[in-house]
Amino acid sequence: MMTPNSNRLHIALFGRRNSGKSSLINALTGQDVALVSDTPGTTTDPVLKAMEIQGVGPCLFIDTPGYDDEGELGEMRMTRTLKAAEKTDIAILLCHPDMDKELQWLQRLKEKNIPVILLLNKADILEDAASIASVIKNKTGESPLIVSANTRQGMEDIRRAIIRRLPEDFDAQSITGKLVSAGDLVLLVMPQDIQAPKGRLILPQAQTLRELLDKKCIAVSCTTDQMEVTLQALSRPPKLIITDSQVFKTVYERKPAESKLTSFSVLFAAYKGDIGYYTASAATIGTLKETSRVLIAEACTHAPLSEDIGRVKLPRMLRQKIGEELQIDIVSGNDFPANPEKYDLIIQCGACMFNRKYVLSRIAQAKEQKVPMTNYGIAIAWLSGILDKIEF
Amino acid sequence: MMTPNSNRLHIALFGRRNSGKSSLINALTGQDVALVSDTPGTTTDPVLKAMEIQGVGPCLFIDTPGYDDEGELGEMRMTRTLKAAEKTDIAILLCHPDMDKELQWLQRLKEKNIPVILLLNKADILEDAASIASVIKNKTGESPLIVSANTRQGMEDIRRAIIRRLPEDFDAQSITGKLVSAGDLVLLVMPQDIQAPKGRLILPQAQTLRELLDKKCIAVSCTTDQMEVTLQALSRPPKLIITDSQVFKTVYERKPAESKLTSFSVLFAAYKGDIGYYTASAATIGTLKETSRVLIAEACTHAPLSEDIGRVKLPRMLRQKIGEELQIDIVSGNDFPANPEKYDLIIQCGACMFNRKYVLSRIAQAKEQKVPMTNYGIAIAWLSGILDKIEF
Repeated sequence: MMTPNSNRLHIALFGRRNSGKSSLINALTGQDVALVSDTPGTTTDPVLKAMEIQGVGPCLFIDTPGYDDEGELGEMRMTRTLKAAEKTDIAILLCHPDMDKELQWLQRLKEKNIPVILLLNKADILEDAASIASVIKNKTGESPLIVSANTRQGMEDIRRAIIRRLPEDFDAQSITGKLVSAGDLVLLVMPQDIQAPKGRLILPQAQTLRELLDKKCIAVSCTTDQMEVTLQALSRPPKLIITDSQVFKTVYERKPAESKLTSFSVLFAAYKGDIGYYTASAATIGTLKETSRVLIAEACTHAPLSEDIGRVKLPRMLRQKIGEELQIDIVSGNDFPANPEKYDLIIQCGACMFNRKYVLSRIAQAKEQKVPMTNYGIAIAWLSGILDKIEF
Repeated sequence: MMTPNSNRLHIALFGRRNSGKSSLINALTGQDVALVSDTPGTTTDPVLKAMEIQGVGPCLFIDTPGYDDEGELGEMRMTRTLKAAEKTDIAILLCHPDMDKELQWLQRLKEKNIPVILLLNKADILEDAASIASVIKNKTGESPLIVSANTRQGMEDIRRAIIRRLPEDFDAQSITGKLVSAGDLVLLVMPQDIQAPKGRLILPQAQTLRELLDKKCIAVSCTTDQMEVTLQALSRPPKLIITDSQVFKTVYERKPAESKLTSFSVLFAAYKGDIGYYTASAATIGTLKETSRVLIAEACTHAPLSEDIGRVKLPRMLRQKIGEELQIDIVSGNDFPANPEKYDLIIQCGACMFNRKYVLSRIAQAKEQKVPMTNYGIAIAWLSGILDKIEF
């Protein structure tokens, strides 16, 4: 019943252990914002708190591990903190008077183009917060906000700082973009196969339908086998047909000439990724040999299903095209190789469970290492020979 | 991305503390079933584990507190265990050789018509499991399954026992029942107001749409203001219109004469409750006076919204009809008075977050105390004067 985490503004707190990151999140959630849900931390993920912030909307606070640990455990915490940075839309950095480690982190975050809010926490127990703040300003060029999770001093300043640093494209992101407008008739072809849990719609379908209703479109949904009777039930051809990528070709063959065609996964390629890089990279499929290596990256960590698209269908289509020996590695969830350069192609899922920032971090990594990267929908459209006939 | 908990078969484990309830759940989830998700226990709810069982489908295991505690804390645990029984589709009772407390619980569960599976756990460390089992059979008339969470002995027997005790109507439950069949055109009027979180569909809408697709219907979705252009975009009138209850009257006035009308909340009244009792009880609204007391029961525990149906809209409609002084109490989540007899009417929400068993337990309680009980959709239909014009 909540806004999906992947659609929330990701605000991560960085700082040493005991710098007060958790109490700060509690102070923010306890008073100024309505707590919606907690997700307990696991060994691989930092603690997450979803909430609404007035003037911002649905947010997700990420409580990263402190970064001042030594030894093996310290390294693991460091890796997790760096991983969190890949998803961060806005960073809150809790400053320590020494500022040595903090300056390093500030630089790391700025290199990733992440807007940073500097905080001087524990104002209620610091002897001279103002002079510490001026030292920090000398070192960073910026005055930190002086706050206290204990007394809640400065919580409203944090909220305003977040609003000032909202990424320009954060709320402007749209799944269907300029493809449809109010009053348009849109057909959604949604086979309810084994991948959709009983009684539920998968997230891209639910999110797309919600957006179409918000845009005042008329959204007609059917399964693949009912597509023809559905078209007959309409008094005009749909402006746009959005299909599950798995039946791209069937739907293309049955669609009215006037109707534009795309897929949920293709729309998510633009919504969550870099459609230009994805489409350019798709052509790489044609150059693959049996000795090539392909990486398939699946966001969901669900148990493999018998006809799973990432684990079964897409590998089968690729091997039919390239050869049975083609080496395909599959990673899921947050697993993604630090050095993907050994791959000739990366194929990312629709990534409805990831936030945009995280997918863009992966793409940046692929580009840096000159590895082509595409996504499920674009790859299937290319393999079906209709990539030039669909809408983005 | 999961089947909603409210749609899962609820299997609760009852037994003394340290009878091995949790390890048994772990044994079941670790090997024989695919673990989907954990929900950590809270002070008011028992621990829940959602998973798939082969041959059954999506289940929810409920790990109740042991019932052999003494003192104040023991009473709290007892209350929680009884509360869990109200949601239980199938009970697993872990037997103790003494069987004194167990016989009481067996009777309690049977009085609630809950099918019970008797287990003798810890078979690997019991000296003579077979003779203990025969003592239990003498006392209960039933042989317990002899199992061990440690060695996993008997896990498959448990699965088969669950399948044998599946409630007959468990999988037959349908939201739209006989109202629609394959190929039917169904219009869903879904205003995306403040109650729907950004980027999401509310559960009854998503569940109904999913069912319509499973039934091979053509599902057309629009917001209230687009209803007329949507009807024009169709080549025939919809067989059925399902609307959000809040705009029941508007939709009734605009609908084609041939189209049948119902609401999500009315469909859920039958799906999750007792439609006969709900509709009979709705007439009570006409007999209420300003001195009457009404209880509104809301399943969601979300923070109150400005135009919340249960907290704002329905009370306003009732007070407009009955008088400003009408006393309305609102409870949410699992809160429900043990003795609702002081109320003249109970109005339950659509209960999409509850399982059917739990709603039926509430209705049984209301009936026993001769308190009329209806739900949001039926109440709004009655207040809009169209209860006799809609479909169940």
